[in-house]
Amino acid sequence: MRIEVINTGTELLLGKVVNTHVTFFGDELFKLGLRISRQTTIPDGEDIRRALEESFPRSEVILVTGGLGPTSDDITRETVAGLLGLALHKDDAVWEHIRSFFLRRGKEPNSWNDRQAMVPEGAEVLHNPNGTAPGLFVPAIPGKSPHLFLMPGPPRELKPMFREQVLPRLQTLSESPILPWRNFKIYGVGESAIAEIIEPRIQDVENLEYGYCCRLGEVDVRLIGSEPAIETASAVLREEFSEDIVTESETSLEEILVERLTAAGQTVATAESCTGGLIASTLTDISGSSVVFHRGYVTYADEAKAELLGVPTELLDRHGAVSEPVARAMVLGCLEHSQADHAIAVTGIAGPTGGSEEKPVGTVFIAVASRGGETIVRKECFTSDRISFKSRTTRAALDLLRRRLCGFI
Amino acid sequence: MRIEVINTGTELLLGKVVNTHVTFFGDELFKLGLRISRQTTIPDGEDIRRALEESFPRSEVILVTGGLGPTSDDITRETVAGLLGLALHKDDAVWEHIRSFFLRRGKEPNSWNDRQAMVPEGAEVLHNPNGTAPGLFVPAIPGKSPHLFLMPGPPRELKPMFREQVLPRLQTLSESPILPWRNFKIYGVGESAIAEIIEPRIQDVENLEYGYCCRLGEVDVRLIGSEPAIETASAVLREEFSEDIVTESETSLEEILVERLTAAGQTVATAESCTGGLIASTLTDISGSSVVFHRGYVTYADEAKAELLGVPTELLDRHGAVSEPVARAMVLGCLEHSQADHAIAVTGIAGPTGGSEEKPVGTVFIAVASRGGETIVRKECFTSDRISFKSRTTRAALDLLRRRLCGFI
Repeated sequence: MRIEVINTGTELLLGKVVNTHVTFFGDELFKLGLRISRQTTIPDGEDIRRALEESFPRSEVILVTGGLGPTSDDITRETVAGLLGLALHKDDAVWEHIRSFFLRRGKEPNSWNDRQAMVPEGAEVLHNPNGTAPGLFVPAIPGKSPHLFLMPGPPRELKPMFREQVLPRLQTLSESPILPWRNFKIYGVGESAIAEIIEPRIQDVENLEYGYCCRLGEVDVRLIGSEPAIETASAVLREEFSEDIVTESETSLEEILVERLTAAGQTVATAESCTGGLIASTLTDISGSSVVFHRGYVTYADEAKAELLGVPTELLDRHGAVSEPVARAMVLGCLEHSQADHAIAVTGIAGPTGGSEEKPVGTVFIAVASRGGETIVRKECFTSDRISFKSRTTRAALDLLRRRLCGFI
Repeated sequence: MRIEVINTGTELLLGKVVNTHVTFFGDELFKLGLRISRQTTIPDGEDIRRALEESFPRSEVILVTGGLGPTSDDITRETVAGLLGLALHKDDAVWEHIRSFFLRRGKEPNSWNDRQAMVPEGAEVLHNPNGTAPGLFVPAIPGKSPHLFLMPGPPRELKPMFREQVLPRLQTLSESPILPWRNFKIYGVGESAIAEIIEPRIQDVENLEYGYCCRLGEVDVRLIGSEPAIETASAVLREEFSEDIVTESETSLEEILVERLTAAGQTVATAESCTGGLIASTLTDISGSSVVFHRGYVTYADEAKAELLGVPTELLDRHGAVSEPVARAMVLGCLEHSQADHAIAVTGIAGPTGGSEEKPVGTVFIAVASRGGETIVRKECFTSDRISFKSRTTRAALDLLRRRLCGFI
């Protein structure tokens, strides 16, 4: 089924507002075994007509975002009705929804909002609990137009509408059953290395599609196909990457850590130099993290490492702050001072300045310690820009903790 | 000048990889007074031919990203040459660059890389110091094709190439002088409130275009036009928003703080509860921050607030952790224990759980303290999801510090 996406919105072309609709759709459609064949962004206003006309013969489904608002350059609804020769009528239920939406906020809808209640004949209304503009499903007119889904632009209105009202319709339209799928998240092995290992073993598996998505040292391997095909491929992945597999779902590494620690009734504390608080921030992105994370130290300067974590000044002087002994002292100091069950610590050179021949920019020591467990310090080198370095180091530290919690190290 | 963007890359349509090229181009083109009139994403492979053919009659310039790599589905170069009837020849300088790129990494280029050295006749090579694939500029062929810029997909190769080699050519091609522009970053006033205040005063200014971009409480107001027009509008903005103006450039709030603190020879320390380290992480995103930021406390649990910052347990019991007195005690404890010149502290309810009638999810107290200065505590309510709450609170805390450093509070 050929699906095209048309995003309307001048702001998407002016810079600064990133188009996140496409990744959202791509991700959601994958679960139905569907793909976007083309995506187009156009400014608000007249361009929607031409974009639709061009897209009609190429596609079976068009997902349109934006242009359903009340202002004069929001003309998606009227343009579609005009192109297809469909009369517009005012839908009482939609109008009631718009009115009550305003009244709840102590306002009255004005005449512009009237237009938002107009529905082309033959179209189905997609209810919008999070805004005034309803979505519309205009079924295909044979020989004339493909199935059209018109949706509001704001993500918090679009996303629930797409998941709850558009996806089920697409599933029916695609006429193919939803295929089972599974997502393996693998840490510590590169995308091409994974491909080289698994492809010879799974490329001939029938009824299996697979794909990779790589981000900051984590690779998602997605399998879609028949249940037995997925099982066969899963067995290969488990055999080849056992301890490197973070999860067989879409759960994030940080969620998994919070879940595992919660289940074990344990806590973790952080001592960060080069990541500057990003590890703690990432853990606390997860709701419920307050049960397992009580404190973190951001010890950017040497005296902070000495004072807050008890790192001996002599160690700092002799080895430098970016060194195995200092990482070890940081993590042990963190464990002791925080009374947590586990501690992670990082010290490295984020750059762009501060590197040397011996310790180039990107060098980082990552440590984990646990009550009654061995203290592990790993050296890595993540050569990239400062922001990526911080993210890569954060992922690596969280993964080291995962391996500890799983008993792998 | 009508400019279209064509992004090739299957990964951009599968979800997870966000297309950041468009915002980058939009932002950079704005400085030349240029806009993107349409943007299209297509998968790797054959679709590029059709997309180009459709785009030719609509545009004067096409920016193409991706499809210049060495694998079989990278066919942008060959497709353009084919469409325009241009012969390809192997460029010795490009080949030498590719070879030395591999040799420096201890590898040899293979026969696939050969293709990357092929240049269509009449095209200019855009040197790529950060990768193997050179960019190409294929000048317009009257009556046939617009100006084509072919660029590699990876952002770290694309961005410098665009800034250094494509923008200057676009400037020449557009034949219009680069208009002066200015960017005001305003914190603490909403986009629509700003519009309501300034539009009556600037909408009739001749030779002036303006636009807004809003993100996490910061609004960028961009002015472009004649020098006197910009001065007139700037005077209005300064008069209306004086202390709310973070900068009249594109410098970020955190950069400004690091610059100001560095210039003053001062330091700041952080004490974070609900932001979980994000404030410290944001400050340390800036290279050179180690001079002004020595330590941060992430005191997520009450006992961490008591132990690390000296917040009296009795205060926590009486008022709760999310309260004015606790925010005050946190920031003063942070100032005292860190020996910094300034301290910022936040305590709030990130949600989605933990809210109450009296203190709903989103409630946050933000405090700043300085040696010899008054301690200020602000109460805010940022109702949104957990991640946005953390970001909004971080921006608000950094802005409060800015106002302190500027002497406004």
